[in-house]
Amino acid sequence: MEGAAAATAVRTGPGTLPVTGENGGGETRPRERKVYMDYNATTPLEPEVIQAVTEAMQEAWGNPSSSYLAGRKAKDMINAARENLAKMVGGKPQDIIFTSGGTEANNLVIHSTMKLFQESQRSRERPAEQQHGLVSGARPHFITCTVEHDSVRLPLEHLVREGAAEVTFVPVSKLNGRAEADDVLAAVRPTTCLVTIMLANNETGVIMPISEISCRIKALNQKRAAAGLPGILVHTDAAQALGKRRVDVQDLGVDYLTIVGHKFYGPRIGALYVRGLGTVTSLRPMLFGGGQEWNFRPGTENTPMIAGLGKAAELVNKNCDIYEAHMKKMRDYLEERLQAVFEKKRIHLNSRFPGSDRLSNTCNFSISGPHLQGRAVLAHCRMLLASVGAACHSDQGDLPSPILLNCGIPPDVARNAVRLSVGRSTTKEEVDLVVEDLRQAVTQLEKSSAS
Amino acid sequence: MEGAAAATAVRTGPGTLPVTGENGGGETRPRERKVYMDYNATTPLEPEVIQAVTEAMQEAWGNPSSSYLAGRKAKDMINAARENLAKMVGGKPQDIIFTSGGTEANNLVIHSTMKLFQESQRSRERPAEQQHGLVSGARPHFITCTVEHDSVRLPLEHLVREGAAEVTFVPVSKLNGRAEADDVLAAVRPTTCLVTIMLANNETGVIMPISEISCRIKALNQKRAAAGLPGILVHTDAAQALGKRRVDVQDLGVDYLTIVGHKFYGPRIGALYVRGLGTVTSLRPMLFGGGQEWNFRPGTENTPMIAGLGKAAELVNKNCDIYEAHMKKMRDYLEERLQAVFEKKRIHLNSRFPGSDRLSNTCNFSISGPHLQGRAVLAHCRMLLASVGAACHSDQGDLPSPILLNCGIPPDVARNAVRLSVGRSTTKEEVDLVVEDLRQAVTQLEKSSAS
Repeated sequence: MEGAAAATAVRTGPGTLPVTGENGGGETRPRERKVYMDYNATTPLEPEVIQAVTEAMQEAWGNPSSSYLAGRKAKDMINAARENLAKMVGGKPQDIIFTSGGTEANNLVIHSTMKLFQESQRSRERPAEQQHGLVSGARPHFITCTVEHDSVRLPLEHLVREGAAEVTFVPVSKLNGRAEADDVLAAVRPTTCLVTIMLANNETGVIMPISEISCRIKALNQKRAAAGLPGILVHTDAAQALGKRRVDVQDLGVDYLTIVGHKFYGPRIGALYVRGLGTVTSLRPMLFGGGQEWNFRPGTENTPMIAGLGKAAELVNKNCDIYEAHMKKMRDYLEERLQAVFEKKRIHLNSRFPGSDRLSNTCNFSISGPHLQGRAVLAHCRMLLASVGAACHSDQGDLPSPILLNCGIPPDVARNAVRLSVGRSTTKEEVDLVVEDLRQAVTQLEKSSAS
Repeated sequence: MEGAAAATAVRTGPGTLPVTGENGGGETRPRERKVYMDYNATTPLEPEVIQAVTEAMQEAWGNPSSSYLAGRKAKDMINAARENLAKMVGGKPQDIIFTSGGTEANNLVIHSTMKLFQESQRSRERPAEQQHGLVSGARPHFITCTVEHDSVRLPLEHLVREGAAEVTFVPVSKLNGRAEADDVLAAVRPTTCLVTIMLANNETGVIMPISEISCRIKALNQKRAAAGLPGILVHTDAAQALGKRRVDVQDLGVDYLTIVGHKFYGPRIGALYVRGLGTVTSLRPMLFGGGQEWNFRPGTENTPMIAGLGKAAELVNKNCDIYEAHMKKMRDYLEERLQAVFEKKRIHLNSRFPGSDRLSNTCNFSISGPHLQGRAVLAHCRMLLASVGAACHSDQGDLPSPILLNCGIPPDVARNAVRLSVGRSTTKEEVDLVVEDLRQAVTQLEKSSAS
């Protein structure tokens, strides 16, 4: 079990840790220990990853397109990383392209699908191919679900606003928090070109039935081909799942899969898996330039970050089962302690849905009480660093998470929700500290509201 | 004068340096010194930059959108970098957004211009505004020049192929290698929306008259406004100029300016300057997601690389004049030695154009002779690491550089061209080694062709 990078400000092994500046003004406060339980927001970099990035900065700074040794060395490093990433998702190295992150990868899939649809429309407008089932000028239709990350939801909503595409946001089941294959299939139209559903939800940790969806879409595609309708591609954003459970593109059956380094102790770049890139599955680039990544993603390669991403993937390949088992143990202990310390009926475990599989590290819970909104509770914690949902929504005020509401969590429960996500080096001692911290915060909030 | 990062494979101070693996197969070859003179392709990272990246990886790995200390620390680091970048180009911090690199920044400007034109067309289609000078359905027109980097040329050519835009590639003057303001102005049409001309050419180092172009476009924009025509925006890709000479957006008068870290001893990310971002000058994003960079460029920020970019900018702010003077001294010495060692009439200095200013570090030259193609000469050098043009064209075979041909260099001269670009730590001793290396390579090539 590797320990994660020691982040001097927020986490380390047992003991106390100085934190200054929290209160501004240069005043020094007593040393305070912080416990980070927001590993779904981002993770520290593993020391080996930092080392890989640093070494590449020192030794592989050549332009990977240069033909002399310095360039070739960088190129080799990039291809070694590509192999580790491919192995991590069960794909081929030539099916991986590096991107600046998950946002770019998700946007790229949507952009590419738009372009491919437009091209197929143009080819259909040629007289010889008018037997195709779509009317000229039809708009592409996308299927996604109501609990996606903004980097999927917003580009789709933008296309709708522009009048360029139609989108169905399939509601997730209020029984199990999943986007069900039946509902996805029921949303299919003749113009449907992409289904994009996340592999694991960032707030609840619920695992979506991607294999089933892909399998049924594939069967449907055969019928569609016979009817002259375009095939439907399947994409999954695996940002939250990678490093927390085994991810295999063959099992999942997807055409595209998004990889995000900083969610699995890697650097702030990402990658996109494309099944049979350029042969089986097409990809239309968003950027044009120097020809890197076989023209699918030009721009001088960020060799050091790519080397670090490769190292992070290598660690996952080696240790994923250990990581998963450890996180599950800590998370289960956390839930057990929460139920023991608070009255069982006051604790709502928002990420436990009957019949749904979920990430091993995520615990989304609410403590019932009129003054126990998630943000208030966190603000009164002295040690715990966590959030009420996606970090990019941290300015959303006291509104309950739309993700939880969409999963059927009642508004008064959702309002009090806190998302804790444990990591590779979370300890039972940290869990105990956090639960005690929460207990004190709740006591304090209830006392001050009573007075 | 800071020394650049010691890159064990290719460059260091005086002395020899082991290079192995060049011949593959694990065989060890005698220790060989290499001299890197391809600083226009990429630069090593300054040790302070490596340190800044490494420290940020260790200490500022929090999600910058998280509201607790770890997040705020990362956010502060990003904003400090933004200030250094703004200072480097003479702009305001709030006018800088971070991108994955120059390719993205250039593509973003072109994408945004397309979107803005389409929006203005849509608003013109409303009855109340039909007095505008453009016919409905008009396509936007871009002006660029014939020696641009692929990250400007190719996205524009793609738009032309798609039938979405029209582009004029203004020929550069064969007398001075510059895209002249007269020619740019003469290319303007009612539908022109963007002029994009690089600040300094990567192969010749010629400085383009951006201030004059901006000034005249601004004057023209006033007349166009009166005629109900859309204003023309001016963009410059300053990738090659930054760190080699002072760059000031006020002097240049541009609306957009592209910044590329790895050309000035920084990391492999970039930034875009936008004059009065979102107020004076609009920008339409290519990506949609978590709202980072004021929604202009979402995606969890690459804090470590941004910190490194800030540090690289800080060094430029502090030392640019020293860097420039040093590089000029070394480049001038190089040209002097080339002319001394080879017969003066055999050396063509392809980057010296009468009346044109040029980068202080770039020396593009040809040695005349039937067997002295640039690639052949470089392949026969034992120490020199350089290229015949842009690294991303390194697989272009023996064709003469289109950039040089467009600058009026005759094909037989262009075929023999070699681009040397010196750096912050290039020494006279290295220049002497390189010139001797070239002399031996030429002798060897001439001998083998004679036998």
